[in-house]
Amino acid sequence: MKEMLHWLDKRVQLTPESLAVETVSGEVITYRELREKAQDFAGKIKVHYSKKLTGQVAILAENSLDMVVAILGCTYLDCPLVLLNTKLSKKEWQYQVEDADVSLVICDSIYEEAVAEVTSDKVAVVCTSEIEKLSVVKTQFKTHIELSDVATLMYTSGTTGKAKAVEQSFENHWWSAISSALNLGIDTKDKWLVSLPLYHISGLSSLFKSLIYGMPILLMEKFDATFVHNAIMTKEVSIISVVSLTCKRLLEELGDDNYPSTFRCMLLGGGPAPLSLLEEAKEKQVPIFQTYGMTETCSQISTLAPTDAMDKIGSAGKPLFPAELEIRGKDGVLEPLTVGEIVVKGPMVALGYHNNSIATKESFRSNWLYTGDLGYVDNDGFLYVVDRRKDLIVSGGENVYPAEIENILLTHPLIKEAGVTGVPDEKWGSVPVAFVVSSQAINKKELEKFCKEKLATFKTPKDFCFVEALPRNATNKLVRHRLQELYLER
Amino acid sequence: MKEMLHWLDKRVQLTPESLAVETVSGEVITYRELREKAQDFAGKIKVHYSKKLTGQVAILAENSLDMVVAILGCTYLDCPLVLLNTKLSKKEWQYQVEDADVSLVICDSIYEEAVAEVTSDKVAVVCTSEIEKLSVVKTQFKTHIELSDVATLMYTSGTTGKAKAVEQSFENHWWSAISSALNLGIDTKDKWLVSLPLYHISGLSSLFKSLIYGMPILLMEKFDATFVHNAIMTKEVSIISVVSLTCKRLLEELGDDNYPSTFRCMLLGGGPAPLSLLEEAKEKQVPIFQTYGMTETCSQISTLAPTDAMDKIGSAGKPLFPAELEIRGKDGVLEPLTVGEIVVKGPMVALGYHNNSIATKESFRSNWLYTGDLGYVDNDGFLYVVDRRKDLIVSGGENVYPAEIENILLTHPLIKEAGVTGVPDEKWGSVPVAFVVSSQAINKKELEKFCKEKLATFKTPKDFCFVEALPRNATNKLVRHRLQELYLER
Repeated sequence: MKEMLHWLDKRVQLTPESLAVETVSGEVITYRELREKAQDFAGKIKVHYSKKLTGQVAILAENSLDMVVAILGCTYLDCPLVLLNTKLSKKEWQYQVEDADVSLVICDSIYEEAVAEVTSDKVAVVCTSEIEKLSVVKTQFKTHIELSDVATLMYTSGTTGKAKAVEQSFENHWWSAISSALNLGIDTKDKWLVSLPLYHISGLSSLFKSLIYGMPILLMEKFDATFVHNAIMTKEVSIISVVSLTCKRLLEELGDDNYPSTFRCMLLGGGPAPLSLLEEAKEKQVPIFQTYGMTETCSQISTLAPTDAMDKIGSAGKPLFPAELEIRGKDGVLEPLTVGEIVVKGPMVALGYHNNSIATKESFRSNWLYTGDLGYVDNDGFLYVVDRRKDLIVSGGENVYPAEIENILLTHPLIKEAGVTGVPDEKWGSVPVAFVVSSQAINKKELEKFCKEKLATFKTPKDFCFVEALPRNATNKLVRHRLQELYLER
Repeated sequence: MKEMLHWLDKRVQLTPESLAVETVSGEVITYRELREKAQDFAGKIKVHYSKKLTGQVAILAENSLDMVVAILGCTYLDCPLVLLNTKLSKKEWQYQVEDADVSLVICDSIYEEAVAEVTSDKVAVVCTSEIEKLSVVKTQFKTHIELSDVATLMYTSGTTGKAKAVEQSFENHWWSAISSALNLGIDTKDKWLVSLPLYHISGLSSLFKSLIYGMPILLMEKFDATFVHNAIMTKEVSIISVVSLTCKRLLEELGDDNYPSTFRCMLLGGGPAPLSLLEEAKEKQVPIFQTYGMTETCSQISTLAPTDAMDKIGSAGKPLFPAELEIRGKDGVLEPLTVGEIVVKGPMVALGYHNNSIATKESFRSNWLYTGDLGYVDNDGFLYVVDRRKDLIVSGGENVYPAEIENILLTHPLIKEAGVTGVPDEKWGSVPVAFVVSSQAINKKELEKFCKEKLATFKTPKDFCFVEALPRNATNKLVRHRLQELYLER
């Protein structure tokens, strides 16, 4: 299988009048209408910006129907689409536009000036409302997708080091959708609520699933706990993707209520989740499925199956059909229950990093992706993600996992959020310090005592900082290396 | 994607203790047990028959757990598996064993003598009960499947001309399962009842779906309307594959009753279905999905979707995601509503015919399979299969479709089954004659009058033969070329 009918065309062939996307403000669009708009969009770019199609096309926008049209429109053009994160700084946009060889940036109008300011004259910056005004020129489009073509370039969320552009092929996106279907099933009544950004793999993968499964998505501009909660309760949502923080907020909204039976899956990704959260969800019978995945695996590569959701709490399940997963140490594959690096393989694993052969060689070796994450498998083959390898604190030769300490802190009744990082220490090399968001002031000494009762001394934070909010990226994932910077700035 | 973990191994990794197969007599087996048995089987063959593995391995057996074990066991060996039809004559087995370069035939004991009699000394014939007795030798097996490898050789049902062995790759079987899932969905509660032979693509494809979806199959030795009906009513069956005749018998069994809500899909294949049957099913709210497929497409390639099942009665739906379908005439693709040859393309389309480059070249051209079936698409893109091209009767220059005449005959209250074929005629070249199974004697003149009221004169059968049963193949599909032979023998 080397090429396929374009997914949007195939979907229109199968179910033209089915709902493709709806928004919370009540906009709706069918697949037939969506294709018409996407092709009109692509035609305008092709005709009016032909001279600006020398490099890649980038999109910088918030979730909206216009953004969906722009993304799908670009799949009809013959170049990869670069998805830019709206939360970045101008400097970061500048870097990514240059690094990804972008020649045309399509953006929401609020970003136009800022982007134009930092990009060279060779780069055209156009906002979607301007494209809207252009005349439609009917033109021919490719009817098929080459599966090995790079579909999208997406910068890794940058929780560690310099952002790298992950090259995701159409084949990667296809298999990601299929693997997820083989785990979660496909129900004709499914509706996926997308509140994570479309420029993030979690949001984008739902859009491709919509085309491949023929499943509507309910699109939100951003996560808002009350809005999302109401949508689940009243709009027949069956699946949603969340991270620990947004999951926690949803459980708060839920209170003692129950979700309707139509709601069958809350996919929890974005790193290890606090056990207290998972237990609260279990108690409330919320169908949480912990997942493990990243930009480089085009979304989930391992997910807890429905049948195991309640027995293997804290686990990110088993590698999806047909993916493979191993825990490796210096000398190869490790035994169960031994922590090592998580390495994965499968057709959803991206091609590599754009223009970065060094990083590609380091992470992608003989079809295996070395994720840089630490974890272990239990005796039944279930994956437990321990931490990001780069977040690991080595203190006096002992491994200290920030997530473990955060889990303990979160069991404190006054603590709402917690983040732990390592800071340099003359004696121990590195020591853990904690950042805490609390509902009331807490005495540092008391907190230290609280931790010491539950943790070894070398794991007990050497300092506690009380803050209003923790640094998070566009998907609300904790950015631990920013914690370190914040601490050192103090 | 070139290789994948062996599907049975992957399934055991994911859900070892889930039910894989149950039989109506109450046998049950989990995926873990199934793999153990399959690998023991493969090990015995590898060790005790190593000298007989010079060519292909063939299986000649009725549906049973033993046959499932043998089929899956053979997927661990490094040769394609030839699936022989138990309903064939000794001469036909002889031909197929030679044609497919078989060196080892594994069979049910009742076939052992007959097969041994017609095969050369170079071919070993072993019955499954003998293999059962051999000592188990633990050995290493391949862990991965090469997707491009030929998995199975299956002879076309032989409704026309000499049987040809279709080369079905693992990739074909994979995509067949995925395409079907994208159309029918996957429900964690699914159970597929298999009453068609495993040596036929309909049965075999359900077995592979079991591994890929993690879905149990309920296996029956053969179709028995009362047994199947009771199984649907009491054993939580959700899906079953049928052909017109078996569908008709099930509707008779159902009477005025309703199927339980767990039963969500009756896949109707094996050629155009009489409209009267489809209307009866619609009236009884039986969830019938007409499908179109063949050995060369590894099961369905076009199926009516749940949403269209009631509006497009008589249609075999649209080509499955990601398959393509066209209606072609001499000068290329035909307009909607024009009858032409059905040609299809997609990753489930087989590689070609084994050892038969002439037939391969004729049917497989530039990735398109020329099916030899006639049909048209309506203005909404829905496929209507008209007839087998080779069954077409050209009478005085007019095209006469046997299925059309059979449909009319079946509306007669006394007629239970009908088959029409063309026989040579000096004046018209060919004329239609009808074979009829009726509950009471019918006057030929009356029947002729009945037809003339509804059909053009050139379509009205020139003769009617009353028989006890019509010639059918192993899947109960009408064998029209046998009708012609029967008529000429009279």
